Amino acid sequence: MPFRCPVEDQRFILDHVVRIGELTNDGDLVDAVLEGAAAFAEGEYAPLAKVGDAVGARWSDGAVTMPEGFREAYRAFVEGGWGTIAAPEDAGGQGLPTVLGAAVMDDLNAANVAFALCPMLSMGAIEALEVYGTEEQKRDYLPRIVSGEWPATMNLTEPQAGSDVGALKTRAEPNGDGSWRIRGTKIFITYGEHDLAENIIHLVLARTPDAPAGTKGISLFLVPKILPDGSRNDLRCVSIEHKLGIHASPTCVMSYGDEDGATGWLVGPEMGGMRAMFTMMNNARLNVGLQGVGIAEAATQHAVGYALERRQGARAGQAAAIADHADVRRMLLRMRALTTAARSLAYYAFGQVDRGRAGDRAAAARADVLTPLVKAWCTDIGCEVASLGVQVHGGMGYVEETGAARHLRDARIAPIYEGTNGIQAADLVGRKLGLDGGLAFDGLVADLREEILAKPLVALADAVEVAAASLRAAEADERQAGSYAFLTMCAVLVGGWLLERQARVVGEGAFLATKRAASAYFNAAVVPEAIGLAGGAGLAADLLYSVEAGALA
Amino acid sequence: MPFRCPVEDQRFILDHVVRIGELTNDGDLVDAVLEGAAAFAEGEYAPLAKVGDAVGARWSDGAVTMPEGFREAYRAFVEGGWGTIAAPEDAGGQGLPTVLGAAVMDDLNAANVAFALCPMLSMGAIEALEVYGTEEQKRDYLPRIVSGEWPATMNLTEPQAGSDVGALKTRAEPNGDGSWRIRGTKIFITYGEHDLAENIIHLVLARTPDAPAGTKGISLFLVPKILPDGSRNDLRCVSIEHKLGIHASPTCVMSYGDEDGATGWLVGPEMGGMRAMFTMMNNARLNVGLQGVGIAEAATQHAVGYALERRQGARAGQAAAIADHADVRRMLLRMRALTTAARSLAYYAFGQVDRGRAGDRAAAARADVLTPLVKAWCTDIGCEVASLGVQVHGGMGYVEETGAARHLRDARIAPIYEGTNGIQAADLVGRKLGLDGGLAFDGLVADLREEILAKPLVALADAVEVAAASLRAAEADERQAGSYAFLTMCAVLVGGWLLERQARVVGEGAFLATKRAASAYFNAAVVPEAIGLAGGAGLAADLLYSVEAGALA
Repeated sequence: MPFRCPVEDQRFILDHVVRIGELTNDGDLVDAVLEGAAAFAEGEYAPLAKVGDAVGARWSDGAVTMPEGFREAYRAFVEGGWGTIAAPEDAGGQGLPTVLGAAVMDDLNAANVAFALCPMLSMGAIEALEVYGTEEQKRDYLPRIVSGEWPATMNLTEPQAGSDVGALKTRAEPNGDGSWRIRGTKIFITYGEHDLAENIIHLVLARTPDAPAGTKGISLFLVPKILPDGSRNDLRCVSIEHKLGIHASPTCVMSYGDEDGATGWLVGPEMGGMRAMFTMMNNARLNVGLQGVGIAEAATQHAVGYALERRQGARAGQAAAIADHADVRRMLLRMRALTTAARSLAYYAFGQVDRGRAGDRAAAARADVLTPLVKAWCTDIGCEVASLGVQVHGGMGYVEETGAARHLRDARIAPIYEGTNGIQAADLVGRKLGLDGGLAFDGLVADLREEILAKPLVALADAVEVAAASLRAAEADERQAGSYAFLTMCAVLVGGWLLERQARVVGEGAFLATKRAASAYFNAAVVPEAIGLAGGAGLAADLLYSVEAGALA
Repeated sequence: MPFRCPVEDQRFILDHVVRIGELTNDGDLVDAVLEGAAAFAEGEYAPLAKVGDAVGARWSDGAVTMPEGFREAYRAFVEGGWGTIAAPEDAGGQGLPTVLGAAVMDDLNAANVAFALCPMLSMGAIEALEVYGTEEQKRDYLPRIVSGEWPATMNLTEPQAGSDVGALKTRAEPNGDGSWRIRGTKIFITYGEHDLAENIIHLVLARTPDAPAGTKGISLFLVPKILPDGSRNDLRCVSIEHKLGIHASPTCVMSYGDEDGATGWLVGPEMGGMRAMFTMMNNARLNVGLQGVGIAEAATQHAVGYALERRQGARAGQAAAIADHADVRRMLLRMRALTTAARSLAYYAFGQVDRGRAGDRAAAARADVLTPLVKAWCTDIGCEVASLGVQVHGGMGYVEETGAARHLRDARIAPIYEGTNGIQAADLVGRKLGLDGGLAFDGLVADLREEILAKPLVALADAVEVAAASLRAAEADERQAGSYAFLTMCAVLVGGWLLERQARVVGEGAFLATKRAASAYFNAAVVPEAIGLAGGAGLAADLLYSVEAGALA
């Protein structure tokens, strides 16, 4: 059973969850984008997933060679304009809702997440340049990043500066002509080097002379691989990592300024790098959430296909496909329910981003509240669903040739990068719970309360409100202690709400029946599990610190 | 921080959970075994884990070459008598409690699970031969399998016969001299071929002429690689699998009888293979549970070590190791609590096996009830803890060189083999819940109810009893639908009981404080999560079958 993009599900979620009609009048265009992206993802990206995993990106003497077929497929991506959907029209984009761009990324992630990372990184850069770029940068770089001709990267992490980005040491010194000389080493740079394009535009966080310590002293620079005069900039890929998954995505150690210093230009104000970084980061966080959705979709289809073909044992006296056995069926329904809920949550958040861009401040704040939920929960779901997919395959799931294990390996990075899921949980309880005096969070819960009917969902809403009140009143350690469990409770509540809304759509047929089954399963099993997390959300920090960490080894 | 076997924890659990004093009077010997096994596992097996993963077992023209160092370490295993602990004295074993043998395997699993699989497979064979072997087999084979000189394998699975072992097609025909001619192909044969030993003793399930279809027609055969006359038997390893993990463990496709037929001898009565297989299998299931425990231990130590070294950000104004951040500390405490609970559950079950062998029929039945809990929950815990370990490592966890990802890859097979965890759940609700008219299960719950004090644990016991009553009254599909969630509830209940017992031991110091913290965390967070599974345990089968499986793709 070859992979098929879930066009019907996407359109349904755009209609009933996102209410895309409020964002664009052109329903035919929505269909055209969904169908075109599906054909592209199925035809060009999906067939390369296996070779991408088996061969991977290869480093030699500073150059990175992509697996066979990737250059051609990337060219088709650029020519098809698949990176331009939601980019601004004045930069060569199509100016369509971001949620449509998200649907395209959902497809590419499902088809080949390691490959889809290349355009994904560009999207954050596009947004940063849109907001903070100079007119020249917008003229000289933005259209080529938008088209995909010159992919962009995000250079934040250094060996000593991971989650603590303020600890970075890369230096920038003024050249006196408006350009800067950059020196430092960055690690974990996704698509930092490759042979897909003639140029690569690096957005690099660095510290200017006399900048204060910590995040306040950070500035953002645009540092192209090839300078405007056609010469090679003083930067190189020193090595790439040997990773658990996403083998086709080169994870680079980048060295800037080994000789005279790499030439770069400020993006936004000096020492305004953190705000620009968060602009990139928020986009990237929602997009990483979509990776969880895409991988979950691919794993679910893969597992259902196998479970229909593989025959073992009998049910009601008849030889049976394993899909007919109740516990296997449970796993498949769980995979589908979690995947659809995650897609609904992610698309809903993108829909709020679109409303925010159109001037709806409450929607923008809601998008901010939802961002950590999307990043953390959808990526956790990606791992859970991929792991269930391995389980459905039985022994064959552990053998690499079936591809079930690849989904799990690929999925496992998403809870880590772009801010670990623990960082997301800290963001939720530390910033988002109090955003707009708490109104952003409370408004979301109030809105969904008006719509939810299922008793377990109502009970979960109650539990979320109790936990929210308690966390708001708590000290910092206490808030952190309960943060992860609380985040999961919130995400399940929103996901359950949006599933229930879909289950109420009137009509016949297998598609709607599946929506109802997914929502019913979610309410019967997943929502009670989330209620069971209330204990963890109320965890006493004292308990965590009652023994030295070393005693836990 | 090099891996250290948890000798103090093992001894404590043997004393307070297993009450080993009731099984042996020789406390010094217990200490000697624990300390000797720890030194062996740390000194010989652990150093080979990395090369075992990176190089793996290699197949060429029917032969399998183990990575460098494995032959020498295996020789040391044999010479140290580490496989003989719990084997019967008349077969050259030491006749010690099986739970002591389990502690040794726990260490070997933590040090190098792919390597530990070799002796693990022998253990099942030893038990089958003890019970069903002829006097000649006990004389000619058993002592050499016990010593480890000739490792043994279990040959059950065939391409069309996995969970449905009754579908196997391998044929056995009598030679007329008491021997049989075996022909067929077996897959997923762990350590089916390797260069660690001069001979390998295969225990092979096959079908004799005119045998009925299904499991009733299956017989067990002993088929040595080298025949008693020194000639090579007609069997070979056709290939090995390329797997997600346990790379040093050769997973073989075995072909029997490509030429004249492989020569074998019946073990137990003709068509009595299923009972002999279950003897092997029950042992193997408990031992696979121990793999989850061992991997969880290794992953926990690994993560704590990293979290103490890695510095990021600040806490209370001071630069901090990540172990000091509340959410990281939560992950570490969770890892420790789950690992200790899983070890307690597994050792407790082995202790019941020992009592059963000494004639306590209720204990034997309790071991039967506990077996699916140990196999399924401890292996799920192995995966969860290993995945948390990756998360604690952040980006470095995704890079293979740290080894954190290896634990996750190695852990993922354990929920699959020796009966998938779904099969374990089916066994629990299908057979074990009704064992001895339900008294075996109810007696366990009644006993723990007399001891548990924490409110969440009592609430979980209530929920387990409600779910048990409901599942007992349910139709087969309904029982299966709720089986997995119910199994987890039961395992958490038993684990929580045994943790609480340890937390009540009076005394000072970091070790006991950690026991109390683990139990407190378990009751505050893990037990409520298990209560949250009650929804899943009551899942309506109708819901699962409300849509065709194909509609879930």
